[in-house]
Amino acid sequence: MRRLPNDAYVYATYRLVDREDKLKARADGIAVGLTVGSWTDLPAAKQAQVQKHCGVVERMETVEHLADGQVVADITIGYPVINFTPTFSALLTTVFGKLSMDGIIKLIALHIPDALRQQFPGPKFGVQGVRDRLGVHDRPLLMSIFKSCIGNNLDELTAHFTEQALGGADLIKDDEIFFTEAYATPEERVQAYAKAAERTRQETGKRVLYAVNLTGPVFELRERARRLASLGAGALLLNVYAYGLDVLADLARDPEVTVPIMAHPAVSGALYAAPHHGISADIVLGELLRLAGADIVIYPSPYGSVTLPREEGERLVAALRRPGPHKPCLPAPSAGIHPGLVPVLLRDFGTDIIVNAGGGIHGHPGGATAGGRAFCAAIDAAVRGIPLPQAAENSPALAQALQKWGYREA
Amino acid sequence: MRRLPNDAYVYATYRLVDREDKLKARADGIAVGLTVGSWTDLPAAKQAQVQKHCGVVERMETVEHLADGQVVADITIGYPVINFTPTFSALLTTVFGKLSMDGIIKLIALHIPDALRQQFPGPKFGVQGVRDRLGVHDRPLLMSIFKSCIGNNLDELTAHFTEQALGGADLIKDDEIFFTEAYATPEERVQAYAKAAERTRQETGKRVLYAVNLTGPVFELRERARRLASLGAGALLLNVYAYGLDVLADLARDPEVTVPIMAHPAVSGALYAAPHHGISADIVLGELLRLAGADIVIYPSPYGSVTLPREEGERLVAALRRPGPHKPCLPAPSAGIHPGLVPVLLRDFGTDIIVNAGGGIHGHPGGATAGGRAFCAAIDAAVRGIPLPQAAENSPALAQALQKWGYREA
Repeated sequence: MRRLPNDAYVYATYRLVDREDKLKARADGIAVGLTVGSWTDLPAAKQAQVQKHCGVVERMETVEHLADGQVVADITIGYPVINFTPTFSALLTTVFGKLSMDGIIKLIALHIPDALRQQFPGPKFGVQGVRDRLGVHDRPLLMSIFKSCIGNNLDELTAHFTEQALGGADLIKDDEIFFTEAYATPEERVQAYAKAAERTRQETGKRVLYAVNLTGPVFELRERARRLASLGAGALLLNVYAYGLDVLADLARDPEVTVPIMAHPAVSGALYAAPHHGISADIVLGELLRLAGADIVIYPSPYGSVTLPREEGERLVAALRRPGPHKPCLPAPSAGIHPGLVPVLLRDFGTDIIVNAGGGIHGHPGGATAGGRAFCAAIDAAVRGIPLPQAAENSPALAQALQKWGYREA
Repeated sequence: MRRLPNDAYVYATYRLVDREDKLKARADGIAVGLTVGSWTDLPAAKQAQVQKHCGVVERMETVEHLADGQVVADITIGYPVINFTPTFSALLTTVFGKLSMDGIIKLIALHIPDALRQQFPGPKFGVQGVRDRLGVHDRPLLMSIFKSCIGNNLDELTAHFTEQALGGADLIKDDEIFFTEAYATPEERVQAYAKAAERTRQETGKRVLYAVNLTGPVFELRERARRLASLGAGALLLNVYAYGLDVLADLARDPEVTVPIMAHPAVSGALYAAPHHGISADIVLGELLRLAGADIVIYPSPYGSVTLPREEGERLVAALRRPGPHKPCLPAPSAGIHPGLVPVLLRDFGTDIIVNAGGGIHGHPGGATAGGRAFCAAIDAAVRGIPLPQAAENSPALAQALQKWGYREA
């Protein structure tokens, strides 16, 4: 079979377990079975007709020998780009549809050539676009997470928003589990918080973007996203893996969705967390979210209770920043973040990140406003290379935070 | 805290690994953290206000003691129904959003009370509705899977369809990886196959439903589904876990989507296949797909190469049939099905199933039409309790199939 040029394929690498003497047949079966269905049975004329649609085995490598002739192996299959439409439905169903159910197998790498990549939206704003909206270019951004949303009325929520905004947060995000509209709709929240943000701005001199949880029936999300944007939402929070990657992509493609989109990793652990099944975290939360157009990607930091190993986190962030046709995303390493970790965050992930905290803000002995101030002081110090204890001499809020949670020098 | 009535909660059971002395705190943290955010810190008045939204720990059970004080434990949390909207986004984000990323943890049971269940669509047609459309009530249905789709033009595809229809299949489904519209759009296929089905009906006397792969941009799927139904599609094939469960649900809810929906399990293995992470297969492919309104559920049979252990398959099918407010679904155990397995399929899963075959039809020595005939003869024999070898005496096609693939008596 004549091969297509290298950039005419999407390459997927699987780490799987199989008998060593069956690897070749397994790989061939994938390449053909997930593209043109059959090959050797076809008459020559038919082969000529369908060959540009036929998958190829790019590489096979034995990683480890197990008992009974079984091996752990990495198999890379090339799927012709022309078999795909620019949807995640096509991409995922082809490269990990049936295969996801086929024994011990994990999708560990996915290489999408620019010809296909360009048909996906990528981030509309990216790092620069989010920074421009805030007018902040020289330091990590600070995001505060609503502590409790469910069961609070609009006045209580607005007071909670204000408390966080006064602490100096650049972004304030809804709790991702906030779905009920019994006390306040997203539209009402956006409008109330926009007014609150105007008021706090007069006090702090800082803009703050509210990331509203985009919820509701799936086919109404685009209309709602446009409406929330026009009402003054600072960003949209989307539970991407609960709704589907194509939902994110088609929101990102929409020119009337005029605000950044923040991807929450809810449910994604069900895809990436298993060692020998599912899809690697850097694909799930890195590669695919950027392709789909997330401007901001929340993912588990390596420091807290809900963690992603540091190496995986680094690969994930690399996928969000790699050169290519799409803008880079802002990573928001999350969970377990307190002011004492800011220097380490900067060391590990650089300045183009969002420092994202919930408990590390609301658990501050002085309350959420003091909690935000402690973070602002820590970020300022870390950027200027000043040790936190020294910075704490001029920030009582930071001093209290360091006393409660400790700190780590980078 | 005062508890709500039992049926006011969604109960989720997690099998997880943690230190035994931390289990109680872990469970409390989940119950509160994934609902009202905090509890013990709240003033009494606030507690009274939010208590109806607060989760509860329903049960904790140690399953196994590991080294170092670690245990495997099952923890059941009750989440108040009023916290949810009837969307899978709300359901999944709450019960397995953050938690999916929290170490070794698998969602192994999900109990949704009728009050919430009724707000989801469930199957529009169900077993009876699909049978009514075909006029077949006394035997398992036969479904034939297109062997190859990609790279074929409309005439070739239509010939392929006809060949399968002449074999006596009740349903013929697209390959789930068929996305490209370069040679024929779904609309063109539906119209061409509907004509072909009319022609074959004159020969076979049988109706056949074509399940067309519903593809394209996500926000256009509803319009396309309506259009394909009105053009004569027999059913819609949906890659549910590639597009998202809410997409299925909102298609099932739509009164203008007037044909059954068939859920393909593509990508679902990434969620269910890991032993200690993700979500159990009976939830992913049973409970959730029925709730979302799949009329037909394709899942891995216990017989073939891509398998689901028999016990898991039985739990899955039980979820599709359990008494409740929703119609039961038709299970289509798939992969590795050949005519010789039909008696075992009936024994294991009953008569209300779809016998679904690709290779077991197209690989027949006499071609796809003979392959279909062999299945029809096998189904007829199995229903009447006639041993397959005996039935093969009157069916050369079945005889050939048994010779090629063998058979198993139930």
